Amino acid sequence: MKLPVVGEEKRKTSDIRLVVDSHQIREDIIVLNREQEHYLRRVVRLENGTSFVAIDGKGLAWRVCLTEYGAQILESLSENRELPVSVTLVVALPKGNGFDDIIRFCTELGATSFLPAKAERTLLNPGENKIQRWRKIAKEAVEQSERLIVPSITKPRPIKEIFVEFSTRNIPKYIACARRDSPHLLSTCQRDFSSPNPPSEIVVATGCEGGWTTEEIETAIASGFKVVSLGKRILRAITAPLTAMAIISSLWEGSGGN
Amino acid sequence: MKLPVVGEEKRKTSDIRLVVDSHQIREDIIVLNREQEHYLRRVVRLENGTSFVAIDGKGLAWRVCLTEYGAQILESLSENRELPVSVTLVVALPKGNGFDDIIRFCTELGATSFLPAKAERTLLNPGENKIQRWRKIAKEAVEQSERLIVPSITKPRPIKEIFVEFSTRNIPKYIACARRDSPHLLSTCQRDFSSPNPPSEIVVATGCEGGWTTEEIETAIASGFKVVSLGKRILRAITAPLTAMAIISSLWEGSGGN
Repeated sequence: MKLPVVGEEKRKTSDIRLVVDSHQIREDIIVLNREQEHYLRRVVRLENGTSFVAIDGKGLAWRVCLTEYGAQILESLSENRELPVSVTLVVALPKGNGFDDIIRFCTELGATSFLPAKAERTLLNPGENKIQRWRKIAKEAVEQSERLIVPSITKPRPIKEIFVEFSTRNIPKYIACARRDSPHLLSTCQRDFSSPNPPSEIVVATGCEGGWTTEEIETAIASGFKVVSLGKRILRAITAPLTAMAIISSLWEGSGGN
Repeated sequence: MKLPVVGEEKRKTSDIRLVVDSHQIREDIIVLNREQEHYLRRVVRLENGTSFVAIDGKGLAWRVCLTEYGAQILESLSENRELPVSVTLVVALPKGNGFDDIIRFCTELGATSFLPAKAERTLLNPGENKIQRWRKIAKEAVEQSERLIVPSITKPRPIKEIFVEFSTRNIPKYIACARRDSPHLLSTCQRDFSSPNPPSEIVVATGCEGGWTTEEIETAIASGFKVVSLGKRILRAITAPLTAMAIISSLWEGSGGN
């Protein structure tokens, strides 16, 4: 059904948020793909003339208006719910669909990038479909949590390769291990960064079921990772990264009174 | 098959942990019920003469030995992975099976009791089966995380009733709200408890999908709850309590260098 773009006074407003790709943006129009059209018109049942929020996943957001030829950009939005620190999570892949949960929770909590890893005790060997699914979950979690940045998710790689790659990068790096009398991630970060200004980037690695092997921990330490604890209890492979993420986000967002 | 209790030199040791009820303990023997016998012998395939860990869920643990007539207590264990603060989570029930996840994650992170609540925007109306299921999940999470205390889980009650009941209790009480410019739970706790000694008890309330109503927040405030934030992003109803729990556990376990 063709409808003229309605005037501002009649425009309906919705809270729907949609991640779009940069190549969909043509000056003041965002060209929607079939899946997005279906979602907007059939699933959440927006009509032409209703406004919603489009985000490019790289830090920009606009209020846009659904029209017959796409989403017309009305105005830029300056909201910002991103953390002041870029957080990379190196995660030894847990069994089953555990990494789906990790992406969902940790994206909500502000993670910037995920490096899924194959460790000695990893059982999962995910294909391309699984990786596409992870990226979709990350987009949905960005829409839900009202973030502007969609975290990057790399293809799974051997954990030692990842550790060694980080050895040349002079940024704070932590590896969470259970059953060692290590200092806690919170107190370690508080000691390492006594000023309220966060580092620009931080890396935390968490293990899969059965934990890290001694050799993996040694490779991490040799690559500049500090061994930390996430508390005395034995956490599941899913619980560890989101605990780390909750600690990091509160540490820099929650210490300034906000 | 009848087997004599094997001597200490031949005894196999397993890491299996099992929560038992106090009434099952008869001097130095723990009488196992049918479900526990099934689990030990069929699921994890222990044989008579193999030792495992039994916990009463109230703070005691023993190394015991599986025998034909039950689990024979060998010695008391003095391990302790409990938090130094008792944490009560008041949780407005989320939709679906969300509360299952909350119990699993928050038990791992050290929660002491759960008060599921019916808020204005709660859709779920769980029956007795669901409550039994929650208690089973809590036991499993205690076994997995190697805790000694099984958190209590009450029957769901109206949220306002719970808030009002807490009004007479002089303990630190927080309610997490999104989209208000409130101070963060972490900084608030750090201000409220400047000494490294935790309070003996702390209460945190988190909302369901759609958040609290204004009236609910007002009732909480009138009952002595402080409004706090869990960060700038909009967290799901499942993510909020485990973020709060991760913050509280790290705050008192992670600030002393452990």
